Amino acid sequence: MGEDVGEDFDMADCLPLPGESDWVFELDENSVYQVYEGDSARDSRRPVVKIPSLRDFYMDLDAVTDISTDGPAKSFAFKRLSYLEGKFQLYTLLNEYQEIADSKKVPHRDFYNVRKVDTHVHHSACMNQKHLLRFIKSKMKKSPDEVVLFRDGKHLTLREVFESINLTAYDLSIDTLDMHAHTDSFHRFDKFNLKYNPVGESRLREIFLKTDNFIKGRYLAEITKEVISDLESSKYQMVEWRISIYGRSIEEWDKLAAWVVDNKLFSPNVRWLIQVPRLYDVYKSSGMMQNFEQVITNVFKPLFEVTKDPASHPKLHIFLQRVVGFDSVDDESKAERRLYRKYPIPREWNTKQNPPYSYWIYFMFANIASLNTWRKRLGYNTFVLRPHCGEAGDPDHLAVGFLCCHSISHGILLRKVPLLQYLFYLDQIGIAMSPLSNNALFLTYDKNPCANFFKRGLNVSLSTDDPLQFAFTKEPLIEEYSVAAQIYKFSAVDMCELAKNSVEQSGFELSLKKRWLGSNCSAPGVMGNNVAKSNVPDIRGQFRHETLLGELAL
Amino acid sequence: MGEDVGEDFDMADCLPLPGESDWVFELDENSVYQVYEGDSARDSRRPVVKIPSLRDFYMDLDAVTDISTDGPAKSFAFKRLSYLEGKFQLYTLLNEYQEIADSKKVPHRDFYNVRKVDTHVHHSACMNQKHLLRFIKSKMKKSPDEVVLFRDGKHLTLREVFESINLTAYDLSIDTLDMHAHTDSFHRFDKFNLKYNPVGESRLREIFLKTDNFIKGRYLAEITKEVISDLESSKYQMVEWRISIYGRSIEEWDKLAAWVVDNKLFSPNVRWLIQVPRLYDVYKSSGMMQNFEQVITNVFKPLFEVTKDPASHPKLHIFLQRVVGFDSVDDESKAERRLYRKYPIPREWNTKQNPPYSYWIYFMFANIASLNTWRKRLGYNTFVLRPHCGEAGDPDHLAVGFLCCHSISHGILLRKVPLLQYLFYLDQIGIAMSPLSNNALFLTYDKNPCANFFKRGLNVSLSTDDPLQFAFTKEPLIEEYSVAAQIYKFSAVDMCELAKNSVEQSGFELSLKKRWLGSNCSAPGVMGNNVAKSNVPDIRGQFRHETLLGELAL
Repeated sequence: MGEDVGEDFDMADCLPLPGESDWVFELDENSVYQVYEGDSARDSRRPVVKIPSLRDFYMDLDAVTDISTDGPAKSFAFKRLSYLEGKFQLYTLLNEYQEIADSKKVPHRDFYNVRKVDTHVHHSACMNQKHLLRFIKSKMKKSPDEVVLFRDGKHLTLREVFESINLTAYDLSIDTLDMHAHTDSFHRFDKFNLKYNPVGESRLREIFLKTDNFIKGRYLAEITKEVISDLESSKYQMVEWRISIYGRSIEEWDKLAAWVVDNKLFSPNVRWLIQVPRLYDVYKSSGMMQNFEQVITNVFKPLFEVTKDPASHPKLHIFLQRVVGFDSVDDESKAERRLYRKYPIPREWNTKQNPPYSYWIYFMFANIASLNTWRKRLGYNTFVLRPHCGEAGDPDHLAVGFLCCHSISHGILLRKVPLLQYLFYLDQIGIAMSPLSNNALFLTYDKNPCANFFKRGLNVSLSTDDPLQFAFTKEPLIEEYSVAAQIYKFSAVDMCELAKNSVEQSGFELSLKKRWLGSNCSAPGVMGNNVAKSNVPDIRGQFRHETLLGELAL
Repeated sequence: MGEDVGEDFDMADCLPLPGESDWVFELDENSVYQVYEGDSARDSRRPVVKIPSLRDFYMDLDAVTDISTDGPAKSFAFKRLSYLEGKFQLYTLLNEYQEIADSKKVPHRDFYNVRKVDTHVHHSACMNQKHLLRFIKSKMKKSPDEVVLFRDGKHLTLREVFESINLTAYDLSIDTLDMHAHTDSFHRFDKFNLKYNPVGESRLREIFLKTDNFIKGRYLAEITKEVISDLESSKYQMVEWRISIYGRSIEEWDKLAAWVVDNKLFSPNVRWLIQVPRLYDVYKSSGMMQNFEQVITNVFKPLFEVTKDPASHPKLHIFLQRVVGFDSVDDESKAERRLYRKYPIPREWNTKQNPPYSYWIYFMFANIASLNTWRKRLGYNTFVLRPHCGEAGDPDHLAVGFLCCHSISHGILLRKVPLLQYLFYLDQIGIAMSPLSNNALFLTYDKNPCANFFKRGLNVSLSTDDPLQFAFTKEPLIEEYSVAAQIYKFSAVDMCELAKNSVEQSGFELSLKKRWLGSNCSAPGVMGNNVAKSNVPDIRGQFRHETLLGELAL
């Protein structure tokens, strides 16, 4: 893929590559798609990659959980982390002025014009409230008679919808919109979810914030284009938008891809992450499906089909080139009851109970791993798993994250599990943190471990999560950095290091990363640092790298 | 004055009003300008207003200080303040949903489109860093050969200036500009003051941020116009810019007024406050003046002259119509030594020592009071005293503020003097707070008493102080509100109440306040509240007013 991926697209892209049509894939009895190179490989059950079994996974998970609750191991990790924090403080005291001098020497480069990627932002909340409000008002003014909704057997125009909820364009304000989550959502993720409904009305969410509705998501596409245009003119801000595939039906992928491709929602500043909500229990109790395997099939089968034959889902093939990975989302603080001593396989998971976090993540991991191996062999882009993890709920989610994930979102509960925190440090697993979001939902700003993690050298980036609910200004990502700088007293160098982390964690192509961070950016330590691009002084890079090597050598 | 004041100006304004030419003013032996209605009044020493003497002032100040350190009085005030805070919390718990419902009912009105005044912002730091950087770069590109500085007997072009500090336009970045005050200025007001120098170079400050320089402040005027244009397009944001009169020479006023008038720096969104730096000691030690009286003369004589005869300083007369008051500025944390048992009068204050805060404020208060009485009689606008007070240093500054001032800036030290805090509450003296500024200089954000003051019902507004040094986004005032909302968990109603306070505290004309807050806005309590304009529910206004009446009745 060249540097221009994303700027344009071509239907010719979706022709199958020559001579690679003898691949076979099938769902095994454990609901993991296996890929075979030819029928003979399939018959002898030699898949291209051996995926660890569910049993292996749970054994590993138990092992990690055991270690992370072991007293001496905890003490050891806690001490190392304290040492790392102290070491950084000492480093800063001794090198502060050198760092400032170094970054001043870099011509034409400062925090505002280093690249930063918003590593965790939900697409349906990617605009700020003023923007959404303005958009709704302009639609009310310009096309009140457009049919926008089919409900209860009736077609409704935009005017009729607003009449039904007793509002005019003039009445609308940020207050009536009521999508800010600041004062009444603390520890109430359920309430926060309702904040996605403008004016508390699910029909407005349906019309303005959904891709698959009566108007085929046209409004959401239009506002998305406006946000894209703002991003492109900002030049230095990129996003990885998270957008939902529910796994309710097998058509979802094609519909979503058609929405993106038909509306030409491509931009060099934008990549996509697929978020899969953990809602099996909802589908099951509404009679929509029999067992958990159906979710897996709906989420993954089209991906294997399109990998085998791009012409089978031409638009999906194009869209996937801009997809960088997967997320798993829901309220982590929901209680997870363990009914089974041993979890049944997905095909037999037919009770109304939702599988636990670990089970969901395992099956996403297993299927993505299988898919990636195949795609890599074919020369296609691959996907990483970057789920919400450790925002709330059971700390064992973090052990799952450690075993299965490229990086995670939130991770604030790592503060309670020193050993896992230390492992995250050693492995430099990315953590996309959103302290403003946490502040509204789970943890007040001053208690957020973000600054500590950063000082200790964990691979932290800053992200907005939901600008629509949490931001006040027109520049949500800058607002996120700004508050962090003010409250945590981050220096300009710290901010640039956070920005650099965000680029490294992101799924943007290596070619782009090279352009943004320097051609040698995948090398470790000082070698990979180009201060003229990153504005991070070499001494900082060196300190981080040598410290990490020291810990690894321990 | 009509609603259009500020939008335009007319030289005919400066003709003297008919039949009012027999006024006389003169500086008395105590360095307070006295105004007499005719020579006979002067001869019999019957000024239009009797100003309390310096001795009276210090006796009152002693009395207030004595009470504020009296044990039982402290306990009493502390208890009342705790009670007020508890009462507000109870009120909020009981009325939260009612308030939200009330503010949703207001059509077309939310936090973003209620008027808010930045009640404390220094003009020479009114632009954000990106803006200043862009401006400097564009000047370097477009007019490098313009002569901008005369120094050491040589005329220098902009190019030569940059060559002398070894920089090109391309080199410049926010880092080289180095005007952010976040990490290295805590408890270092001296260092903070140096942050006013771009690239640490006083010559750049001279060229770009001064009104009285070789290019007659043209660059600063140009960038001011750009900021004004941003403000006007925001529509709902107003500023009261603080700009310096030093009292070093008698020409300062005319020069400043000419700068404003000649550059047409008028806007309905802008009013001016005059800040007088307390730098007598600097002028004295450089041999610039003999005694403190000269500062008073330089600051006040032109104002009395122009009030007597507008044609004597025509531009000053026009400028003064957009001036709302005075500020007194310097590092409050400087030690104030008390050398004298009894302070000498200004004419005899001829040592190198700077007079203390109280002395400075008294002479500003006394002369402004005299001037105001006269101007009111003539139908001219009057001035209020709104100094920096209680940002650091001796708490007795706050007692001075209580005795002499319409409102103050900062006031964070009120947290240490419960009795004065309670008096500020009872008198509803305005406090323009800037927690982000304090966070960088004197007090971390979480310890700032702003949220407590607000809950207790003190008359608090939010202001930016120095966007150039403290803000990260393009909307510094919204950033200030945003951080406060996030960290202090202010509700939308709280934010609107803060915005309403800022309008009330401001010096904008009553006619404008009526347009922004409702025609009845000067009435107390619910009567003066127009929820359709202020977006503050009546129940909140009622609660505040009844609580205040209750305390006053105590």
